[in-house]
Amino acid sequence: MDATHDAWAGPTVEDLGELAVLDRIVRRLPPGAPVLGPGDDCAVVAAPDGRFVVTTDMMVHGPDFRWAWSSPEDVGWKAAATNLSDVAAMGAVPTGLVIALAAPQDTPVAVLESFADGVRLAVASLAPGCGVVGGDLSTSATFTVSVTAFGDLEGRAPVVRSGARPGDVLAIAGKLGSAARGLTRLFHEGVDAAGEPSREATIASGADSDPDVGRQRRPVPPIAEGPRAARAGATAMLDLSDGLAIDAGRLARASRVTLGLEVMLDDVELHGGEDHGLLATFPADVTLPAGFRRIGVVRERADADLVRADGAAVPTTGWDPYADWDGAAG
Amino acid sequence: MDATHDAWAGPTVEDLGELAVLDRIVRRLPPGAPVLGPGDDCAVVAAPDGRFVVTTDMMVHGPDFRWAWSSPEDVGWKAAATNLSDVAAMGAVPTGLVIALAAPQDTPVAVLESFADGVRLAVASLAPGCGVVGGDLSTSATFTVSVTAFGDLEGRAPVVRSGARPGDVLAIAGKLGSAARGLTRLFHEGVDAAGEPSREATIASGADSDPDVGRQRRPVPPIAEGPRAARAGATAMLDLSDGLAIDAGRLARASRVTLGLEVMLDDVELHGGEDHGLLATFPADVTLPAGFRRIGVVRERADADLVRADGAAVPTTGWDPYADWDGAAG
Repeated sequence: MDATHDAWAGPTVEDLGELAVLDRIVRRLPPGAPVLGPGDDCAVVAAPDGRFVVTTDMMVHGPDFRWAWSSPEDVGWKAAATNLSDVAAMGAVPTGLVIALAAPQDTPVAVLESFADGVRLAVASLAPGCGVVGGDLSTSATFTVSVTAFGDLEGRAPVVRSGARPGDVLAIAGKLGSAARGLTRLFHEGVDAAGEPSREATIASGADSDPDVGRQRRPVPPIAEGPRAARAGATAMLDLSDGLAIDAGRLARASRVTLGLEVMLDDVELHGGEDHGLLATFPADVTLPAGFRRIGVVRERADADLVRADGAAVPTTGWDPYADWDGAAG
Repeated sequence: MDATHDAWAGPTVEDLGELAVLDRIVRRLPPGAPVLGPGDDCAVVAAPDGRFVVTTDMMVHGPDFRWAWSSPEDVGWKAAATNLSDVAAMGAVPTGLVIALAAPQDTPVAVLESFADGVRLAVASLAPGCGVVGGDLSTSATFTVSVTAFGDLEGRAPVVRSGARPGDVLAIAGKLGSAARGLTRLFHEGVDAAGEPSREATIASGADSDPDVGRQRRPVPPIAEGPRAARAGATAMLDLSDGLAIDAGRLARASRVTLGLEVMLDDVELHGGEDHGLLATFPADVTLPAGFRRIGVVRERADADLVRADGAAVPTTGWDPYADWDGAAG
């Protein structure tokens, strides 16, 4: 029995009201750097080199997660981790998060507390020193989380997608395919006889304790590797959110190059998303920083192919929320 | 006939897919300052004095707006305006916005285009020079917008809620009560026989062209007045989002003072929210900056009263989304 699932009981947010709920959540969140205490119309965040990087990402019940498969703590972890990963992909060090959350009125307060626990655990594990500097608490028929994350470039230029040059080495940090294997297992084994997401089926099938399912619920992006790559001279970098092939295609298109993969990868490693590893290119004479492994080379663009492996083009397609979500929640 | 309401027709976001929808929206948004072009995992924003202020606010279909009463352009305007107001309330100049938006799959693309038009019009009118630097497009059963806004303090200390001192002058900028009168009129006259929000009833009753209804749909917060107050030496300031009485109570509590109102205000001016004016305190010897008018004084806290008027305590209560939303959308 996963303790975090016990969050679905007890007094609701409607029972307690906004202020009491806020008070319960804030104490569980990792505190931001104390440029200014909470309670004003804005937070004040340090930007030591006169710039900051910023990314935002919304997670929605239904298309992005199912309560039958993820605990509130999992959802909090993932909301923080995916945004931290986008900061790392610029070569920046995460400095703060703001979180807007809207929950149905019958949501137990314990669900929001567990969500906050997940945010705190992710930040402590992935980006210690980063904290939540502000937020907004609202209500909605659909449980929705929107995280905005900030980072410090430490005086360096941002590492963008368009900087790869022919002759560079292509390298990745982090896992490939694990989160996608976990999601496939949940879709196949974590459902009831009618095909609906089911917590009971997830446990009975053993999927609940599958490390791949764990990675789907709580991705572990290589956050420290982002600034490390920048310091080592990475010429281009991005976060592998939608799958290696589609994200490599984005880097290749932005840099007007072709990426040649040198390692054998199976379909799920090529096309599975949500692992949030880092894909980066480095000058050929650079010793790859810790955490990165070589998977290919950057070539002149000779034809329309963005990514090639084993002498053939690799399709660079992936998930589209508007076209691909089936409308189900669970 | 309001042209923006014609947005509820034509191809849907599901018909076009994420990339085509993004392309259509981005060209309508006000561009951000070109520290880095769009298309990377993060935007890069300038923070000239080594700090930035940040605020986030989520607007949800149902508790925060009804399509029968607001056009998509109105919702875009309001989402931008309310966040810009929080930046101004710190004495900061708005420098950028990021916007996450989740729409049901059957939403016409024209609705998102009109939303973007509203953001652009609000920024052009309220904070020219500010732009949208990044965002996220997703899908949800509930139309949801989350805006995060940034601002530059221009080397000054932030103007916080806790700085008011006995003897200071209490002043406001902006309207009082207009947005609340507009909302009351919509609830009474913009509904059908069953009490459901109705566009036809809104038009037939004349509410559609009521300036107060216009202020509810498109608040016009005094953005430039925020930094102006800071330059003039404001000791405390906040955004009047929930109503003068409750927000004055917050300032009084944070500053450990009592605020004495000297002007006669009716109930809606005291307790009506969503006008997004600015409440500020200034040393008694300061000439109030343009846009501000005196409404009272700051006193030593002699008892439990936070706000007093005409010799009596003013109740400092207001809207609670968890306790007060009736669950309806429309």
